[in-house]
Amino acid sequence: MSEFACVDALVSPEGSLEVLSQQEVNRLKDTSLSGGHQLLRQCALAVLSSGSPLDDSRALLERYPDFDIEVLQQDRGIRLRLTQAPAHAFVDGNMIRGIREHLFAVLRDLVYVSNEIQNNPSIQLNDSAGITDAVFHILRNAGVLRTNTAPNLVVCWGGHSISRHEYEYTKDVGYHLGLRGLDICTGCGPGAMKGPMKGANVAHAKQRIHSRRYIGISEPGIIAAEAPNPIVNELVIMPDIEKRLEAFVRMGHGIIVFPGGVGTAEEILYLLGILSAPENQQQPFPVVFTGPASARDYFEQIDAFIAMALGDNIRQRYQIIIDNPQAVARAMKSGIEEVADYRRAMSDAFYFNWRLKIDPLFQQPFIPTHQNMSALPLDNRQPLHELAANLRRAFSGIVAGNVKEEGIRQIEKNGPFELTGDPKMMHALDALLESFVAQGRMKLAGHEYNPCYQVAKGEHQRTL
Amino acid sequence: MSEFACVDALVSPEGSLEVLSQQEVNRLKDTSLSGGHQLLRQCALAVLSSGSPLDDSRALLERYPDFDIEVLQQDRGIRLRLTQAPAHAFVDGNMIRGIREHLFAVLRDLVYVSNEIQNNPSIQLNDSAGITDAVFHILRNAGVLRTNTAPNLVVCWGGHSISRHEYEYTKDVGYHLGLRGLDICTGCGPGAMKGPMKGANVAHAKQRIHSRRYIGISEPGIIAAEAPNPIVNELVIMPDIEKRLEAFVRMGHGIIVFPGGVGTAEEILYLLGILSAPENQQQPFPVVFTGPASARDYFEQIDAFIAMALGDNIRQRYQIIIDNPQAVARAMKSGIEEVADYRRAMSDAFYFNWRLKIDPLFQQPFIPTHQNMSALPLDNRQPLHELAANLRRAFSGIVAGNVKEEGIRQIEKNGPFELTGDPKMMHALDALLESFVAQGRMKLAGHEYNPCYQVAKGEHQRTL
Amino acid sequence: MSEFACVDALVSPEGSLEVLSQQEVNRLKDTSLSGGHQLLRQCALAVLSSGSPLDDSRALLERYPDFDIEVLQQDRGIRLRLTQAPAHAFVDGNMIRGIREHLFAVLRDLVYVSNEIQNNPSIQLNDSAGITDAVFHILRNAGVLRTNTAPNLVVCWGGHSISRHEYEYTKDVGYHLGLRGLDICTGCGPGAMKGPMKGANVAHAKQRIHSRRYIGISEPGIIAAEAPNPIVNELVIMPDIEKRLEAFVRMGHGIIVFPGGVGTAEEILYLLGILSAPENQQQPFPVVFTGPASARDYFEQIDAFIAMALGDNIRQRYQIIIDNPQAVARAMKSGIEEVADYRRAMSDAFYFNWRLKIDPLFQQPFIPTHQNMSALPLDNRQPLHELAANLRRAFSGIVAGNVKEEGIRQIEKNGPFELTGDPKMMHALDALLESFVAQGRMKLAGHEYNPCYQVAKGEHQRTL
Amino acid sequence: MSEFACVDALVSPEGSLEVLSQQEVNRLKDTSLSGGHQLLRQCALAVLSSGSPLDDSRALLERYPDFDIEVLQQDRGIRLRLTQAPAHAFVDGNMIRGIREHLFAVLRDLVYVSNEIQNNPSIQLNDSAGITDAVFHILRNAGVLRTNTAPNLVVCWGGHSISRHEYEYTKDVGYHLGLRGLDICTGCGPGAMKGPMKGANVAHAKQRIHSRRYIGISEPGIIAAEAPNPIVNELVIMPDIEKRLEAFVRMGHGIIVFPGGVGTAEEILYLLGILSAPENQQQPFPVVFTGPASARDYFEQIDAFIAMALGDNIRQRYQIIIDNPQAVARAMKSGIEEVADYRRAMSDAFYFNWRLKIDPLFQQPFIPTHQNMSALPLDNRQPLHELAANLRRAFSGIVAGNVKEEGIRQIEKNGPFELTGDPKMMHALDALLESFVAQGRMKLAGHEYNPCYQVAKGEHQRTL
Repeated sequence: MSEFACVDALVSPEGSLEVLSQQEVNRLKDTSLSGGHQLLRQCALAVLSSGSPLDDSRALLERYPDFDIEVLQQDRGIRLRLTQAPAHAFVDGNMIRGIREHLFAVLRDLVYVSNEIQNNPSIQLNDSAGITDAVFHILRNAGVLRTNTAPNLVVCWGGHSISRHEYEYTKDVGYHLGLRGLDICTGCGPGAMKGPMKGANVAHAKQRIHSRRYIGISEPGIIAAEAPNPIVNELVIMPDIEKRLEAFVRMGHGIIVFPGGVGTAEEILYLLGILSAPENQQQPFPVVFTGPASARDYFEQIDAFIAMALGDNIRQRYQIIIDNPQAVARAMKSGIEEVADYRRAMSDAFYFNWRLKIDPLFQQPFIPTHQNMSALPLDNRQPLHELAANLRRAFSGIVAGNVKEEGIRQIEKNGPFELTGDPKMMHALDALLESFVAQGRMKLAGHEYNPCYQVAKGEHQRTL
Repeated sequence: MSEFACVDALVSPEGSLEVLSQQEVNRLKDTSLSGGHQLLRQCALAVLSSGSPLDDSRALLERYPDFDIEVLQQDRGIRLRLTQAPAHAFVDGNMIRGIREHLFAVLRDLVYVSNEIQNNPSIQLNDSAGITDAVFHILRNAGVLRTNTAPNLVVCWGGHSISRHEYEYTKDVGYHLGLRGLDICTGCGPGAMKGPMKGANVAHAKQRIHSRRYIGISEPGIIAAEAPNPIVNELVIMPDIEKRLEAFVRMGHGIIVFPGGVGTAEEILYLLGILSAPENQQQPFPVVFTGPASARDYFEQIDAFIAMALGDNIRQRYQIIIDNPQAVARAMKSGIEEVADYRRAMSDAFYFNWRLKIDPLFQQPFIPTHQNMSALPLDNRQPLHELAANLRRAFSGIVAGNVKEEGIRQIEKNGPFELTGDPKMMHALDALLESFVAQGRMKLAGHEYNPCYQVAKGEHQRTL
Repeated sequence: MSEFACVDALVSPEGSLEVLSQQEVNRLKDTSLSGGHQLLRQCALAVLSSGSPLDDSRALLERYPDFDIEVLQQDRGIRLRLTQAPAHAFVDGNMIRGIREHLFAVLRDLVYVSNEIQNNPSIQLNDSAGITDAVFHILRNAGVLRTNTAPNLVVCWGGHSISRHEYEYTKDVGYHLGLRGLDICTGCGPGAMKGPMKGANVAHAKQRIHSRRYIGISEPGIIAAEAPNPIVNELVIMPDIEKRLEAFVRMGHGIIVFPGGVGTAEEILYLLGILSAPENQQQPFPVVFTGPASARDYFEQIDAFIAMALGDNIRQRYQIIIDNPQAVARAMKSGIEEVADYRRAMSDAFYFNWRLKIDPLFQQPFIPTHQNMSALPLDNRQPLHELAANLRRAFSGIVAGNVKEEGIRQIEKNGPFELTGDPKMMHALDALLESFVAQGRMKLAGHEYNPCYQVAKGEHQRTL
Repeated sequence: MSEFACVDALVSPEGSLEVLSQQEVNRLKDTSLSGGHQLLRQCALAVLSSGSPLDDSRALLERYPDFDIEVLQQDRGIRLRLTQAPAHAFVDGNMIRGIREHLFAVLRDLVYVSNEIQNNPSIQLNDSAGITDAVFHILRNAGVLRTNTAPNLVVCWGGHSISRHEYEYTKDVGYHLGLRGLDICTGCGPGAMKGPMKGANVAHAKQRIHSRRYIGISEPGIIAAEAPNPIVNELVIMPDIEKRLEAFVRMGHGIIVFPGGVGTAEEILYLLGILSAPENQQQPFPVVFTGPASARDYFEQIDAFIAMALGDNIRQRYQIIIDNPQAVARAMKSGIEEVADYRRAMSDAFYFNWRLKIDPLFQQPFIPTHQNMSALPLDNRQPLHELAANLRRAFSGIVAGNVKEEGIRQIEKNGPFELTGDPKMMHALDALLESFVAQGRMKLAGHEYNPCYQVAKGEHQRTL
């Protein structure tokens, strides 16, 4: 089989799409034909090409130019007709079951968001409570909110193009988490999102744990760059990056951050911005930054930048552990036990952290246009959590410019984004980003990094 | 414990109500407080008093006058506070699990119908397809539509106050159905609704069948008279009698009719009215009328009445088998195999019979006021299926006058319903009803039957 | 189907007989052909005729005179060829699965005892520890010793031909045991052995308990009279009555005694004889005698007889509860909690009570010949537990004379057994036995009781 | 934790050793103290050090010189006391569950062989049928013979110290087997025994297959060199190499041979010697030799040697597929379908191939002393299957000299084994062995290979 061989196929649904009313089948067909079709096609292709080395959605679509997906109505329900789909998703003519599950998870979530969230008058998407409600409904509809399970979900963040050595380290950490019965949730994709799952998978097998969960939470813009690896056995596609981040922090019982690039920095700013809110002071929530010795500098720079931007106190919310997977796993295990005690004491649910206060600034979708990027106030003349939110947006925009189809197009058209702000902070930011480049953390697989941003370090004037 | 001892209790949910958003909890609380509260209280009491000999909802409410139910919001979700509830639903302070499931099934369905069906602009309740859609959604939300199960669901209809001897016969039939791996669906309650389940339960145990289904489909007006017996392990509360009947014929793969009273006659007219539609001619659907020797007369009268009203051809859609449980079970088994073949050939779903054509006359709720009852055209000057539909309504009204709270109140206030129509048919109808009375099939447990209707056998004039 | 219709059939094994070596198949064939064949035929017929009203093994064999069973070797293992077997064990040509399990349990145990116990040099059957070992091995081989299960097994003893009213009471007690999550173990057969299982079965269904255990422990001599009822889902055939009794007390966590006849008296003497041993003083072991009001006299007589024979102290080891099923269930529940605590404290297994001291007098098989019966010393010139053991034997002999094939034959040939002993005790014994007759507790279904014993109340002389 | 840190621990049993009689506990204690103790200690250490890079049992015992294992009797059963055991078998003080299962599998099998096989008069170990019976009983006692499973077990053979590249190839083949629902059985250990399991594990996860089997069959002499990798979820320790080989061919439904050294050659001779027997001509049994391009020469040499020794016809019993994992998986899949058809047609069991004829020459344990080795007749003056058996023994002796404790000791004492025979065959043999050395297939991890044999190529005279 050539590397990019294609097949045509008819595929039957799995799980929640098996029992549909005829009206639902029609609506699903309509949604998949009209506005949503391009999104569905793109996400489906990402899922089907899982395992492929391409992490650029345009490259993927170019490689399979004739790929298409169509929802068919049949008496007993629906079927998907795939045209010119990647052949390696099939074995002797049958789609691999895990990939089939991913494919229908994509369909399920895109259609649910389109039909039940975006057009639902009872969900107020411009309101903080409404956004949280939307996150909750999407997760529940995907079947990932489980009762009767003690807290054990570790969210792992980090780069998708880390070195082999750092990748092995993430596997090692996953292994020691798995040995302790902890499950893994990541953003899908390769690198630090895959390593912990692979390690945990081996450890779960050794410990004969059968109800293993490897949850992947993606979003349409990133899924092509970070296709769900085959280990993921519960996949959710959130509609945007902010809801994806909210899903991580409301479902996870602890978070590990591995080395990464700007995306990882975005996640760190998001998390610490939220944890710095006074309302969240009392909540235990274990956070560990970790990597092998090679990542020591990286975390020292991040640590310094955070302390500079958010103040020294924030350091109480995380630990840095270098080159010690067992210590990381033990810290998570004991931190999560505190979370369990706290939830029990407060009669809180285990499966969704309703109590966590998230400021609307972290919830509202940020569209990284050139205008929005340059308008971001990056200085100390605002409350800490607002600064955190704006820094998060800056990093988010850079991620978009690096890997998202729309972002890449904009950069090609209008040149790099401009970031402006208070000079000291701009210097620090620029140093941080340059160190990412120097450490090869911004390099995408296969080609040199060409920055999609520039930091204006000159005089900065902002009218408050 | 005295027979009517009471306890107060807090109860946690089971199943689908375990994972709720805070908004859903609030809505559920609101629904249970406002308009729906009286309905919830009445249905909940019926479920909790399962096993009690009372089959009159007013008697039940009088027996437990201080019973109340309240939805509480707690951080982890909801709880129900029960006040002065029947003590025999509890063991050493804990509610019996099956009753707890029934209780939350009631809450689930009442709230779902109120929030998702009645106020849902995408479900057209005055339209045939819309009503079918509503039936489908309620059943799916209740989790009773299962894929990957070959057709094996036998619906059993018949009286709730049959004689001991006939009751034993229904158990025997259930036993022989169960030995052949068939599951049972009834309308809940005692008599012919309980016997087949009890018999099948023993047979399933003997055959070591673990995935046994005893599905009860009730509706708010009847549940007090026919509380779900404890064997029911899947309970659904449909909003009205027409949707309940539609649920039976769309979910069931075959139907057995045991002796009963007017309610049973209503069900027979409903079923045969539908099966006589030309669109349904090709569909296999096994129907057996059966009872011990004592029921021979009963079925002969029914048979004669039906043939008189709907024509001889209708006899091809049912068999009458007297005093032979094994033959009944074999007929069902082979009939259902034909259903399976047909569904496979047509690529139809096994769990819901979308293809069955149901005329809107059988779907629209009929409110049995004195005016509506006397306006029913009961003559041959209409198509057969319309006559069947109107006869079904006449019987339905008599059931209401016999056992439903609202019906009883109306009869007490305005005297018996009047039924008018073509004299020959009125004679036949009157004879049939009188034979029911003579055979004790209209007698409610504990007191003599006092007819709630009178048939006007004199000159009948209707302007078409 | 006529009541005694017959069929021929080939049946494949279930469970432990599915994977056999070719040598094992041969040995099994040999065993079933040679000495063991008559025993196998008789036990198999009892199992197949479960549900039949005959409780006399000779009557059964006469009813199905041409019944035979043969072990066939086939490449993949064994099959059983049944000739002229009771037709009601089959449904449409297939043997009911539960009956098939019972049939292979019979084969499994008869062969295991013949091949692995009786001819095993490492098991000393004339030694107390060796007998206990044999009991353990038979139970383990039958798969009924389960780890990871908290103590919850209630043994129920009582008559197999009790009145309808008393039978209903045993169901009620079983129901309240089942509501509390307790499992049931009895000696198989109808009456007090079936009622508690039926009641518990309904309660387990109500409580949605899926891992329900209804253990039947029989022995070849009694199985024809007490065929396993269909609810039994774990069946063991112990080789003799003493090992059967030992199996009850080592597996059970508490014992309920319902009204019965001599067999029940035998069980009571066995149990209390063991519990009166000094080595067993510290062990908690809940024992309740119970029945409806009609059984009050019965238990008062038993109570008086026991106190007379074994002394007043023995009354501390049991409670008598009349007409209160809930109180019985609560007493068992709390008694078994004490058992659990004790076992945990002593690091004892839950599934087999190794610690219980059983005197060899209670373990050695007693053959009730006329000579052995008349030689029983029934007086106070021996330690209490020896007297208990001898009284137990006297009752055991009477049971044999009543219902066992060999016993009946002996009585027919040599007239009634003679029992002699100390006059006071003989009077008491005679009074007790006569009250059993008067209360109809010795009457076998269908015919009047004709005593198989006579008590010599005259002068008694025994040389010590 | 240092690489060779040690801990002391008490460990409770898993599985079949949970329910033991007191006599069994004593016997087990005795066996483990007396003759069997050294064997138990050595095997236990191998299991506990799974994952360690040492493949020499003496090196292992030297690394953990104070390791010991003791069976303790406790009221509820047994416990194992481990002294100075490898720390990496534990997580936060608890033994990893899979390793615990392996440890008790070792104990189970050693004790079973010692108590139930070696001293069992009904098993004739010097008789062909008796040896097969022993193999069957050990496998059944280990719980690996499963009914109700269609044939799907692929045995994978090959070297334990293959190159990284060849290892990756074995993973790839395992992956494609796993995608097709096939399970894996190997001899435990690293290299070609681990790769296919790892690959299949990933594929089974992708296909959501939950009942995955990774069966390891080892023997005491090899287990130290080839400790069970953690993926193995069913482990059996056969008493000697011949019974281990018989277990492979009776349980497996097809066999894949990867590149290896002398051990692999031994396995090939064993397999083809058996398949060449006339009695086995009709039996389908798929055999594939495969490796990446680098293994082409290796298989060509093997192929030539086999054809020279056993004749050209033998080539019909195997395929050679180079560098095509998918083709290998497809060949196995279709070959195993033929096996299933054949077994069904012959009414043979799926779980154990009773029909395969194995000559006693292949069953009797061969003790590779210098005398036995030099006495092996390696020439054509004997039937083909005898020559195959003797060549198998020659290779087996070389394996012992390479990696087994006893063999290494003998070589150290008496110098290399001498092999003599017909010059042409001796030349071919010598060339084959030298090519193994040249290809690095005889090199043990970490040090150069020092041949433990020499081939006498001079004049050979044997009196027949």
